Amino acid sequence: MINPIIYANQPLIKLFGCREETAKIDEEAVKCILDDIKENGDKALRKYCLKYDGFSGENLSVTDEEFDAAFKALSKGYIKMLKRAIKNITAFHKKQLKKGFEIRKKNCVVGQIVLPVSCAGVYVPGGTAAYPSTVLMNVIPAKIAGVEQVVMVTPVKSDGKIKPEVLVAAKLCGADKVFKIGGAQAIGALAYGTQTVPKAEKITGPGNAYVAAAKRIVFGTCGIDMIAGPSEILVIADKGANAEHVAADMLSQAEHDVLASAVLITDDLSLANAVSNKIEERLSNLPRREIAEKSINSNGKIVVVENLDKAIELSNEYAPEHLELCVENPFELLKKVKNAGSVFLGYNTPEAVGDYYAGANHTLPTSGTAKFSSPLGVEDFLKTTQYIYYNSAALYAASTDIIKFAKSEGLDAHAQSISVRVEK
Amino acid sequence: MINPIIYANQPLIKLFGCREETAKIDEEAVKCILDDIKENGDKALRKYCLKYDGFSGENLSVTDEEFDAAFKALSKGYIKMLKRAIKNITAFHKKQLKKGFEIRKKNCVVGQIVLPVSCAGVYVPGGTAAYPSTVLMNVIPAKIAGVEQVVMVTPVKSDGKIKPEVLVAAKLCGADKVFKIGGAQAIGALAYGTQTVPKAEKITGPGNAYVAAAKRIVFGTCGIDMIAGPSEILVIADKGANAEHVAADMLSQAEHDVLASAVLITDDLSLANAVSNKIEERLSNLPRREIAEKSINSNGKIVVVENLDKAIELSNEYAPEHLELCVENPFELLKKVKNAGSVFLGYNTPEAVGDYYAGANHTLPTSGTAKFSSPLGVEDFLKTTQYIYYNSAALYAASTDIIKFAKSEGLDAHAQSISVRVEK
Repeated sequence: MINPIIYANQPLIKLFGCREETAKIDEEAVKCILDDIKENGDKALRKYCLKYDGFSGENLSVTDEEFDAAFKALSKGYIKMLKRAIKNITAFHKKQLKKGFEIRKKNCVVGQIVLPVSCAGVYVPGGTAAYPSTVLMNVIPAKIAGVEQVVMVTPVKSDGKIKPEVLVAAKLCGADKVFKIGGAQAIGALAYGTQTVPKAEKITGPGNAYVAAAKRIVFGTCGIDMIAGPSEILVIADKGANAEHVAADMLSQAEHDVLASAVLITDDLSLANAVSNKIEERLSNLPRREIAEKSINSNGKIVVVENLDKAIELSNEYAPEHLELCVENPFELLKKVKNAGSVFLGYNTPEAVGDYYAGANHTLPTSGTAKFSSPLGVEDFLKTTQYIYYNSAALYAASTDIIKFAKSEGLDAHAQSISVRVEK
Repeated sequence: MINPIIYANQPLIKLFGCREETAKIDEEAVKCILDDIKENGDKALRKYCLKYDGFSGENLSVTDEEFDAAFKALSKGYIKMLKRAIKNITAFHKKQLKKGFEIRKKNCVVGQIVLPVSCAGVYVPGGTAAYPSTVLMNVIPAKIAGVEQVVMVTPVKSDGKIKPEVLVAAKLCGADKVFKIGGAQAIGALAYGTQTVPKAEKITGPGNAYVAAAKRIVFGTCGIDMIAGPSEILVIADKGANAEHVAADMLSQAEHDVLASAVLITDDLSLANAVSNKIEERLSNLPRREIAEKSINSNGKIVVVENLDKAIELSNEYAPEHLELCVENPFELLKKVKNAGSVFLGYNTPEAVGDYYAGANHTLPTSGTAKFSSPLGVEDFLKTTQYIYYNSAALYAASTDIIKFAKSEGLDAHAQSISVRVEK
C-alpha cells in the first residue's frame, strides 16, 4: 500500500528515498576470472562455462542448424511481429547516424571523420526468460553504425540451448556470431579475445551483478555502454488520467526487479488515492506478484503537488530513466523536461510501447544519470577522428601565433617544431 | 639514442613496448578527501586548499578586479593571438553541434531531443606553467553545447594568484566562474557541490594522478571526459620527409612527460637513421631536455617497414593519440586510418598546430583507446532524451504485437499496461 505524500518542500531523498544500487558482489573473484581468460583464452573460458553454467559443449558458437531450428520453432505471427518491431527500431536509429565534416580554406583544412568500432560485443541475459528485445536494442544500433562484426553472447544451461526467440532476433537483426557464454567469463572473452571469441572494442548490454562488475573492470581495455542500476519509472499524471492505467504502468516497472522504483507525481489528490487502491487490486493478478509487491512496498511512491510545473521541477531533479506524462497536453510539458532517458507522452503511451516496439531504445540512463548521459544509440558504436592539414603558406602565416602560444606554456620543443619549418 | 628496428612481424608490444599507465597513488586518501567534501562542503574544501596549496584566501572565487588586472598584465599581441585561436576552435566545434529529430506519423510520433548538461566543471592544471590551451579546449565546446554554467577550477599557491594567460583565456572563452581550487578537493567540490562551488554534471580537463583518481571515483555521480594516459605521437614518414622536422615533432611530444611516447614508422631506412641522429642533436637545445631525454630513451621508437600500407596497418593497431602523416599524399593515406585521435597531414602540419591553434580539440584518447573513443568535443556536454507519443488508434493497432512481445519475455504486467487500455 502506497500512502500518498503531500509535497511540502521535502528534499528529493525524503520523497523518493535513496535509489539503491544493485547487489554488491565479490569483485576480486570477477577479476580472477577475467585474468584467467586474458591469459589462458578458450581453455579458461570453457572451464568457467562448465563451472557456472554446467555447459561443456564442444561448440561454443551457435550453428546454422540451430538457427534454422529456432525459426521453425516459432510461429509465423511471432516472426512477423519481431520484424515490425525491428522495422520501427531501425527507422528511429537510422536518424542517429552522424557524418563527419570538413572546413576547407585556401591553405588549410580541418575536419572530422566518423568511423564505427570494428567489433562490438552484445551481452544478452539468459536464464528462465528469453529477452529478444535486448537483442534488438543492442544489435540494431551497432549494425546501423556500420560495425563489421557484431558478436552476441548469451548464457546457456547444461543442455546448451538458447531460446528460439533470442536466436531468431539475433539473425533478423544481423548479429554476425552468437556464442553460448555468459557471466563475467563472457565479458572477459569479449574484452581480451580468445581463440574462438573475437576481441570486441565495445561491449554493451545488460547483465547481473557479475556481468556489471566485469564490464566495469574491462572498461579502458574496451568501451562499455553503461553500468545500469535498477529500473525506474516516474509518472506525472493530471486529473484526466485513468487511475487503472497509471497503476498498470507503475506495476509494469515494479515487476522487473525488487529494487525497481515506480513513482507517481500528480496534482490531483483523488487520482493519487485511486492509483494507490488500483495498485493493490491489480497486484493480485500478476504472475510476478512477489517481485512487484516488494518493489512497490520499498520504492513505490505517490507525491501530490500543487501543479504540473512543480511536478516537472521534481522530475528534472530526479532525472528518471522512464518518464510518463499522462496529462492532457503532454507536448507542452515535454518542453520543460530537462533530464530523462525516455519520455512517454499522453494517456495512451505506456512505457511498454517503448520497451519493445515504437523504435526508441530501451537501454536508458538510470539512478539520475540522465542528467549527463544518454540512451544507448548508434553513436555508442561510432568514434571520431580529427584531421588537420596546413600547407607551408598556412604554417608560415600561423607560425608567430603558435610559437607565442607554445612558449607561454613553457613548451619550447613545441615552438621549435614550428620554427624549424619556417625559419630559413 | 633510438636504434631503428627493422619490422619483421614482431607483435606490437615488442615494437613499441607496453604503454605505461600514469603513476599509481593512494586512492583511499583521495576517497577520504572526497567524502569529507561531500559531507562538510566549503569547510573541508578550505582545509585541503590550505593543506595542499598553502592557500587560505577568504575568497575562493576570482574577482572582477583580478580579471581586469590579468588583461592589463598581458600584451595586446598575446590577447589578439588568443582571440585568433579561439576563433578557429569555435569554428571547428560549432560543426559538432547536433540536433534532435522527429519521426511523425498519423497516429504516433517518436523523436529525440538534444540538451546540454546544466553545469560543467573544467579542471585546468596549475603549477609553474600556465595552460591557457586547456582553458580553450574545454570551455569553448561546453559553451557551444549551450551549458549555462561553466565553472573552471585551477590550483594556486599561497599567494592566491592565477597566471594572467589562464584568466584571460577563461574570460575570453566565456567561463562563468573561476575558483582557486585544485587537486582531488576541486573534483570533490565540483562533483558534490559546496556552499560556494556549484555542483557540476560533467567534469572535464586534465590533471595529475590525484585529479585522475578523483575523477574516476566521482564518475557516476557526474559524468567525466576520460582518464587520459601519457601523451603519444606516432609519425608515419616517407622518404620525402625532412628528418630534422620529424625529430622536432617527436621531441615536442617527448618534452611533455617522461612517460610520453614518440614513435616513428617509415619505409625509408636512411630517414630512420637521420631522424635518430637529429633527435640526439636537437635534444641538447631543449629547455626541458631532461624530461624529453628520459621519454626518448624509454619510449622513443623507430620502426622501418616495407611500405606505407604496413605503416598504417601498425598504426591502426596502435591507435595513437596523435598521428602525423609526413608523406607525399597524406589525404590518400588518411582514407586508410581507422583508429587515431587526431591526424596531422603532410610535411607542414606538426602536432603543435593542433595543440593550440587549428581548431580541432587537443584532448584526445590515449593508450589505444582511440579504437573506441573520441576526442573531447561539443557532444561531451550534450545528452539526449527520447520521446514517444501514441494515440489510442496507434496503441490499438500495435497492441497485439506488444502484448505478444511482452508475454514472450515473461513480463505480464507489461502486457497488462497495454491490454488495460485497449480491452473494453
